[in-house]
Amino acid sequence: MEKIKMILDCDTGHDDAIALMVASKHPDIELLGVTVVAGNAGLHHTLPNTLNVVQHLGLQVKVYGGMSRPMVRDQIVGKKIHGESGFDGPVFEELRIKAEEEHAVNFIIRTIMESDGDVVLVPVGPLTNIAMAIRLEPRIAEKIKLISLMGGAAGMGNTTPSAEFNIYADPEAAHVVFTSGAPVVMMGLDLTNRTIATEKVIERMEAIGNKAGKLFGDIMRFTLQSQKANGLDGGPVHDLTAVMYLVHPEFFRMKEAFVEIDLSKGPSYGRTVADINGRLGKEPNALVGLDTDLPVFWDEVERVLRLHN
Amino acid sequence: MEKIKMILDCDTGHDDAIALMVASKHPDIELLGVTVVAGNAGLHHTLPNTLNVVQHLGLQVKVYGGMSRPMVRDQIVGKKIHGESGFDGPVFEELRIKAEEEHAVNFIIRTIMESDGDVVLVPVGPLTNIAMAIRLEPRIAEKIKLISLMGGAAGMGNTTPSAEFNIYADPEAAHVVFTSGAPVVMMGLDLTNRTIATEKVIERMEAIGNKAGKLFGDIMRFTLQSQKANGLDGGPVHDLTAVMYLVHPEFFRMKEAFVEIDLSKGPSYGRTVADINGRLGKEPNALVGLDTDLPVFWDEVERVLRLHN
Amino acid sequence: MEKIKMILDCDTGHDDAIALMVASKHPDIELLGVTVVAGNAGLHHTLPNTLNVVQHLGLQVKVYGGMSRPMVRDQIVGKKIHGESGFDGPVFEELRIKAEEEHAVNFIIRTIMESDGDVVLVPVGPLTNIAMAIRLEPRIAEKIKLISLMGGAAGMGNTTPSAEFNIYADPEAAHVVFTSGAPVVMMGLDLTNRTIATEKVIERMEAIGNKAGKLFGDIMRFTLQSQKANGLDGGPVHDLTAVMYLVHPEFFRMKEAFVEIDLSKGPSYGRTVADINGRLGKEPNALVGLDTDLPVFWDEVERVLRLHN
Amino acid sequence: MEKIKMILDCDTGHDDAIALMVASKHPDIELLGVTVVAGNAGLHHTLPNTLNVVQHLGLQVKVYGGMSRPMVRDQIVGKKIHGESGFDGPVFEELRIKAEEEHAVNFIIRTIMESDGDVVLVPVGPLTNIAMAIRLEPRIAEKIKLISLMGGAAGMGNTTPSAEFNIYADPEAAHVVFTSGAPVVMMGLDLTNRTIATEKVIERMEAIGNKAGKLFGDIMRFTLQSQKANGLDGGPVHDLTAVMYLVHPEFFRMKEAFVEIDLSKGPSYGRTVADINGRLGKEPNALVGLDTDLPVFWDEVERVLRLHN
Repeated sequence: MEKIKMILDCDTGHDDAIALMVASKHPDIELLGVTVVAGNAGLHHTLPNTLNVVQHLGLQVKVYGGMSRPMVRDQIVGKKIHGESGFDGPVFEELRIKAEEEHAVNFIIRTIMESDGDVVLVPVGPLTNIAMAIRLEPRIAEKIKLISLMGGAAGMGNTTPSAEFNIYADPEAAHVVFTSGAPVVMMGLDLTNRTIATEKVIERMEAIGNKAGKLFGDIMRFTLQSQKANGLDGGPVHDLTAVMYLVHPEFFRMKEAFVEIDLSKGPSYGRTVADINGRLGKEPNALVGLDTDLPVFWDEVERVLRLHN
Repeated sequence: MEKIKMILDCDTGHDDAIALMVASKHPDIELLGVTVVAGNAGLHHTLPNTLNVVQHLGLQVKVYGGMSRPMVRDQIVGKKIHGESGFDGPVFEELRIKAEEEHAVNFIIRTIMESDGDVVLVPVGPLTNIAMAIRLEPRIAEKIKLISLMGGAAGMGNTTPSAEFNIYADPEAAHVVFTSGAPVVMMGLDLTNRTIATEKVIERMEAIGNKAGKLFGDIMRFTLQSQKANGLDGGPVHDLTAVMYLVHPEFFRMKEAFVEIDLSKGPSYGRTVADINGRLGKEPNALVGLDTDLPVFWDEVERVLRLHN
Repeated sequence: MEKIKMILDCDTGHDDAIALMVASKHPDIELLGVTVVAGNAGLHHTLPNTLNVVQHLGLQVKVYGGMSRPMVRDQIVGKKIHGESGFDGPVFEELRIKAEEEHAVNFIIRTIMESDGDVVLVPVGPLTNIAMAIRLEPRIAEKIKLISLMGGAAGMGNTTPSAEFNIYADPEAAHVVFTSGAPVVMMGLDLTNRTIATEKVIERMEAIGNKAGKLFGDIMRFTLQSQKANGLDGGPVHDLTAVMYLVHPEFFRMKEAFVEIDLSKGPSYGRTVADINGRLGKEPNALVGLDTDLPVFWDEVERVLRLHN
Repeated sequence: MEKIKMILDCDTGHDDAIALMVASKHPDIELLGVTVVAGNAGLHHTLPNTLNVVQHLGLQVKVYGGMSRPMVRDQIVGKKIHGESGFDGPVFEELRIKAEEEHAVNFIIRTIMESDGDVVLVPVGPLTNIAMAIRLEPRIAEKIKLISLMGGAAGMGNTTPSAEFNIYADPEAAHVVFTSGAPVVMMGLDLTNRTIATEKVIERMEAIGNKAGKLFGDIMRFTLQSQKANGLDGGPVHDLTAVMYLVHPEFFRMKEAFVEIDLSKGPSYGRTVADINGRLGKEPNALVGLDTDLPVFWDEVERVLRLHN
């Protein structure tokens, strides 16, 4: 089997880091680059946060800084869950590596245009980088193999009652992505809120004994605290699901649906209006994640974390 | 204990009829009148539908025709679930009784204004009658003891992916009700979709052997068919929950929340944006139903149906 | 020629009073009643304000109190131009007459339903009374001969940059009126801002020497002050144009247009989007006033004011 | 006096060409480059249209292709006024020159960032290029000396009753520009509709006898035809006003105002809600053109056209 060529687009961030740990070492994935966007915190946080993970785990992957602001709306950041830096909790040594000179948006455009149409984008933050790339070079839309994204919710949101953070942070970008014609996999809260790393899961990953397992623990123990306030029994590994789907789609229950982004400025601004039950009779434009098989999911996470040094 | 003085406002309608069966015979309820609104079908259907139930079961209650159109929006009707008449399925003898001359809106205003502030409104259709009454006579808002309504959804809707039928059919009226200052209990799909009358429940009510039990069966066997298409294992008795809450609040898990009606004309128009998790920091204006204890719920339904002739 | 049967619906108000002076004495008009609505001030001001004019001028016309709040939106009042009472300036003797018991909305419904389809409505305040009547009794829509209203603007508004006061005060009611199917004449700011009562006009009316001429002066000298702040050379007699059109349509340059009320909650909420230049290709639903022949207009005003005692 | 360093951003386009004629030869202007955007027609038309003018008049200026689609909304093009090509009418020899390789958005960013804060942007089409540059490199916002744009209307629009074409074609981009913090001059229809090139003006420019005068004639005779349908006595030179303001601000009556772009998806989508009369009490963010001194305006146009070969 040929490896899946992937660009991970993230706003590191706790679960972003876990998605990166798996994407960078999974034997079936070729990670072409990591692009960074503002989201859980400003870009001046999310970019070094990402570099910290890369350096700490000794990953061989290039990192590209991207959009520091949403396309149209005023900026919001996700301090409540992720702390001031967007990645509070883990402590890292001094940063010695740097991001590439090339802008993330240009890297995405160049990579897709030079490809044979076999590149998958995995955005797990606000969709600003992806949408800007699609608008700057519209021809990439039909060359993107798949956009597997973490974001949205068919049910209730986590930032407003209607909207999930990644989409709410840049609804207009999300609209560009969902209407681009590129195939979209949407891993929303309906699914990702089920992927809670319980104390038992955390202990299991820590027991691996390497840096990756240790970092998994540091991360999830932090979000465990903040998520408790959110009414959950621990922190979900939201972003990881968008990576995992690519290598193990069979782990997930998915449904085709027409998804429209609410661009009204009303109380549902940024909602992913997902027609799971086919009431509107419109052509589906996304495959929406509904549930996952947690035991095999965690087995696979452990297997990949063990591949780290 | 003093009886609860109630006006039932409905758009009969299958589950409306069941709500009426319980409200009209429950020993703790004094049913002051039944007001009718367009909704599941036009008023020219919902009014005779309501009279049919009253006549068939020999109920001693006055029926008042109300609003035939929503306050502002274009009219929609709920044919898909309820059939052409809004109450397909049961067959009734020729109608010999008539509605009162007084308009439902005027009846509501007069009853509240003449009361000691002890009247409860139970709207289980679009909120047009209630909202028009509140606007025509704003003083009733502070005299209404409680508005216990069936409508809305904190999660997904059943008419659009965002909105439930009763609210979607007249979002502006819902806005008037939720911002009126009157205490509101919202029994939305989050709760009501759980009140499914399974084959077993239907058989149990039919086994009572009276007209009411038989009608319950005729109704729920019909909606069982149409709801299967909707992905449910039978028909929920949505509207009944708004009545049942009044006499048995202890059957229900409720949560205080700020609820805003989405009045944008976007894809979430008519959504009840319910801040169940308190993300917005706004003063609650409703008590939202989340779950119910089904066994005791059905026991009580059976007990009341047995009180019919 | 048969007299024009008219109900004047107003929120007195300065120019409302002038409209009433002309409507009540014009030989070609039969004033069936005056209905009052909240607008320039709350109903507790606009109703006595209207009665004050009726009593002061000894008019033989019944006055009906109506809606004290808009249909859906939060209430705004027009204090800036009209002062605290909505009719600051003129001073009246103690009020000895009273409004009728019947609600304005019911009076409108009854009058239209009992008519031969020959009644004209002249709303010169927010359209709440008219819209409520249309919704409570939808059959009046096709029996109304004409709705000649003061409100809206094809160009700039006077309350927000996009919206004129009467429409902005109840956009949802305006939507009901403009989509009702009844013929609508819209006298908006594009026209009414041209009907400025200059010092010369004021002196001319005062020179008549009767109470009506004197009241005209008191009113227009007051609004002259407040309108100066608004960048105008005096106060326009906005509301009067909607009355004058009925008896002298030849005084006005009008254009058929499709008019849609902006119900978004954005910065153009309450705008009368008037397709004067036919860009949208939609069926016209209103006749929009663009200009008037001022000399003949003032001649006619003087002629009618002279008919007062 | 130092020359004004300007980037002209256009969607040539008839009046765009005239703006280019003046900008390229005015002795007080240093035209750093011409960037092109989709608008009056698709980019595959507007880019060669622009190159045609440059080649035909032998201009020494670099041309950069930019955005082919609006930031968020679906694309519209202005065929009605400008014909299929967006520039019907004039006939050009075969195109021998080419656009630069660099993307217009990157050229704008680079030029501003390398400047001493003395570069003026003159967008006379949809604001997509400018907004994308501001978002890709937010630091340019405070280095831009001025954005003098043609677009919008305080009164009525020309594409919908509420919106002018350039803004309606990309309202989200306009929002980015008006909220960027960069100083904005808005030359909207309120002003530009007054700059009609009558038969007399056309003859006068043609009488110059050079290619530029001849092209002015060819252009304005074409738009004269299409604008007649629009109710105007000839074609206005809309775009030219945004250039002329830079060298002769004294020709124009301007007013500071707070301008908000209507981003609702209602009937006023794309409206420039311009608070000319200061009703909203918000800090002005634009200088809005209201009127111009036509005789001196045309004198200056003639003077510059004479400077062409």
